[in-house]
Amino acid sequence: MLGIVPAAGAASRLQPLAFSKEMLPVGSTFDERGIERPKAVSEFLAERMIAAGADRICFVISPEKTDIIPYYARHPAAERFCYVVQDQPRGLCDALFRALHVMRDDEDVLIGLPDTVWFPVSGFSLLPEDELAFLLFPVDEPWRFDAVVTTGERVTEIQVKASRPKSNWVWGAFRMPAWTFKRLHALWLEPHRGDEYVGTLVNAYLRRGGQATGLTAGERYFDVGTVEGYRAAIDALRPVAVAHER
Amino acid sequence: MLGIVPAAGAASRLQPLAFSKEMLPVGSTFDERGIERPKAVSEFLAERMIAAGADRICFVISPEKTDIIPYYARHPAAERFCYVVQDQPRGLCDALFRALHVMRDDEDVLIGLPDTVWFPVSGFSLLPEDELAFLLFPVDEPWRFDAVVTTGERVTEIQVKASRPKSNWVWGAFRMPAWTFKRLHALWLEPHRGDEYVGTLVNAYLRRGGQATGLTAGERYFDVGTVEGYRAAIDALRPVAVAHER
Amino acid sequence: MLGIVPAAGAASRLQPLAFSKEMLPVGSTFDERGIERPKAVSEFLAERMIAAGADRICFVISPEKTDIIPYYARHPAAERFCYVVQDQPRGLCDALFRALHVMRDDEDVLIGLPDTVWFPVSGFSLLPEDELAFLLFPVDEPWRFDAVVTTGERVTEIQVKASRPKSNWVWGAFRMPAWTFKRLHALWLEPHRGDEYVGTLVNAYLRRGGQATGLTAGERYFDVGTVEGYRAAIDALRPVAVAHER
Amino acid sequence: MLGIVPAAGAASRLQPLAFSKEMLPVGSTFDERGIERPKAVSEFLAERMIAAGADRICFVISPEKTDIIPYYARHPAAERFCYVVQDQPRGLCDALFRALHVMRDDEDVLIGLPDTVWFPVSGFSLLPEDELAFLLFPVDEPWRFDAVVTTGERVTEIQVKASRPKSNWVWGAFRMPAWTFKRLHALWLEPHRGDEYVGTLVNAYLRRGGQATGLTAGERYFDVGTVEGYRAAIDALRPVAVAHER
Repeated sequence: MLGIVPAAGAASRLQPLAFSKEMLPVGSTFDERGIERPKAVSEFLAERMIAAGADRICFVISPEKTDIIPYYARHPAAERFCYVVQDQPRGLCDALFRALHVMRDDEDVLIGLPDTVWFPVSGFSLLPEDELAFLLFPVDEPWRFDAVVTTGERVTEIQVKASRPKSNWVWGAFRMPAWTFKRLHALWLEPHRGDEYVGTLVNAYLRRGGQATGLTAGERYFDVGTVEGYRAAIDALRPVAVAHER
Repeated sequence: MLGIVPAAGAASRLQPLAFSKEMLPVGSTFDERGIERPKAVSEFLAERMIAAGADRICFVISPEKTDIIPYYARHPAAERFCYVVQDQPRGLCDALFRALHVMRDDEDVLIGLPDTVWFPVSGFSLLPEDELAFLLFPVDEPWRFDAVVTTGERVTEIQVKASRPKSNWVWGAFRMPAWTFKRLHALWLEPHRGDEYVGTLVNAYLRRGGQATGLTAGERYFDVGTVEGYRAAIDALRPVAVAHER
Repeated sequence: MLGIVPAAGAASRLQPLAFSKEMLPVGSTFDERGIERPKAVSEFLAERMIAAGADRICFVISPEKTDIIPYYARHPAAERFCYVVQDQPRGLCDALFRALHVMRDDEDVLIGLPDTVWFPVSGFSLLPEDELAFLLFPVDEPWRFDAVVTTGERVTEIQVKASRPKSNWVWGAFRMPAWTFKRLHALWLEPHRGDEYVGTLVNAYLRRGGQATGLTAGERYFDVGTVEGYRAAIDALRPVAVAHER
Repeated sequence: MLGIVPAAGAASRLQPLAFSKEMLPVGSTFDERGIERPKAVSEFLAERMIAAGADRICFVISPEKTDIIPYYARHPAAERFCYVVQDQPRGLCDALFRALHVMRDDEDVLIGLPDTVWFPVSGFSLLPEDELAFLLFPVDEPWRFDAVVTTGERVTEIQVKASRPKSNWVWGAFRMPAWTFKRLHALWLEPHRGDEYVGTLVNAYLRRGGQATGLTAGERYFDVGTVEGYRAAIDALRPVAVAHER
């Protein structure tokens, strides 16, 4: 199982930082000697992918964000990480498809955003296998995200940063089999497409007869890519809160 | 006036970090467009130095910590910063004296620790000019720091990480004229000295007849070099707290 | 087809360098505007892999050698490159097997050393497909390399830095199908193996009944990892020489 | 004595490189164990400054060129180096004046270009002290440089990249006392000045009554900032040539 971590984006809402936004410390962890240490925000996504069975995690980085590499070289699961590069900021879809280099034909793919923290930790495992499935989270400001409109558990539309979305459930992570990933890629390659965002590409996929599941099993979602979200995540991830959560 | 910022130390109590510990975000600031953004812990020291009149701020970095440089190249006071290198971890005194390259004969020198945050902001300006003067802060665990023993405002001894220090006031910053800095350097160069810590060197200086003032004007002191101190600083520097402080 | 480029080794024979030894300029190339520019030594290997049909090239880097990434992000074939990390210097075999993350079941694998330059450019294409095959080069000092002893084109032994090797032909590159790569990996994982060098592992593979071809089609071989080899390569790759070669 | 090394410029004529152009290997040196190793081009300038008595060498770097710092941290004269930053490419004069932070009132300043190699090694020492003095070199293509027109040893004009310069002697290095450096700075700060190049600023200085000496003691000059010059320097600095030179 392959986890794809799109980490090529600039941290326009947090700049300047002296490091990649995916390395922002949020909450803490305990090392093998029992010593508490800061935890980079992207570790939350990586551990959720590993919990769901990802044996390889592919970071898509920009050429400037190589600080991610030595950090994960010291991670307990260091051997699982590999890297591809998005040399220009061509959007999220372009970033994700660069991981095709590492994908195998017969595996499931997990995708999440490395500057978010969400619960439950088991989120990826709750999603059905072998289909395109989104893990949905209730948020207060769905207009800032991709709001996912569903009928039952069936996704009917994704509204990308719509001013008045019909749903306050947004996707925070998703999974699919490799062959669906390739179908989305083929669709994205069609003339006049090259979508920047996942939402519009999935809408086209649905219009072509594709299906997608939306599971409202997400509980809490923090977008650490803004100062407010960063602060909220720090609050939520204090030692007591984390202990309580788990 | 020259500010010296010893930033060559490893972050042994916080590792692994993806960046220099002096870049840890603590609190926030607002950029020229009024947008809130994270603030690197070492900016607190730099702004206290600038508030006291430092026209040049010299960071002493290790060869690995060059991430400090592009960060401060975007600082509003970017032109004031310069850098010298401590190639091996030879202790705090060695680091400080490397800034002699940049020091002028007739100026005052300000020294602080870039992984601490303290109040009041005006601390350096409260210290008397033209003499060796320490800004003292009351702490709960003085055995973790350099406890400064005083008679009136006169320093009689500095107790370096003593198990039962006679004082719970520790130095958080200090200033002195260039000629005192050079006297300390000459003392440090004597055979069998080469002190690692400032405290033992100052004790020798006092025994030789030197004088030092200790001013108990410090109010709050956070050591961000530990997870606990980092967390305490984040709490104390929430927007409300900061607004209240100022 | 996958190219594997083991670039995790320290440049002990060339230190200090301000950059990874794989980035050493050797010879030159002409950019899309016809302007001559220096060429990093590892580009020679990459272009030989691309000439043979590699659609993906996986660099195995150490955590410190991330300067390779922005360089290849500007390469004309930038999209083909991906990266895995060898966090500790555990030898060449360990480095190569880390690329298993990126390998597919049904492809051929090309392997070469990124601090060497060899001719002919078409070397990889000369090797037979679907078997373990070494491209051999005649050198003056075979004791510094892996000398390959053959009977006809059949490899009988690889002599690793032997003081008096039976052959002055050394391997400079090799290819094999994915399933052979996995067999070698399985062999390497056996208790008490974990070979550092390719030669001893291949010898064990041969003793188990495996077969390997050695093709004496290599013409010139430069080891840029030494000052002498670096200088020889610079001489050999002057514009006239290159023009002549092609 | 202060050496100023303007190393903030982009390597537009050599890009892409995986490192700062000042780190290009040219020629070689022998380390303390007698082992030959590549030599970064900027070391030639640094050793000429040290030979003339510079106790401090200030590199002016751009925020991206921090690879210079760990390299010089391993230099035999590592303690002499310090750094200031030019955050934007504002030209050579702006870069040089940033070193005012490090300059003392009563010293001489040596200035050279870190992507050039010139002989004799003793060049800086040949220049008269306590005055503005240029070390001139005969070149074949003076229109690519600052051609220095002299009457006797008195500089009458500097022709900046003039198509048909009156002289084929160009400056390769210069020295002056601190007070002249400050006069040039004051002149540069005048409204409507802010010269990009040294030549126009010196011309204005001469028109105001300032004096400058031009010494035709330079013998050979290599501009390593172009592929041709880089190649010529490599040829000229082969071990035999170097031995012969010294």
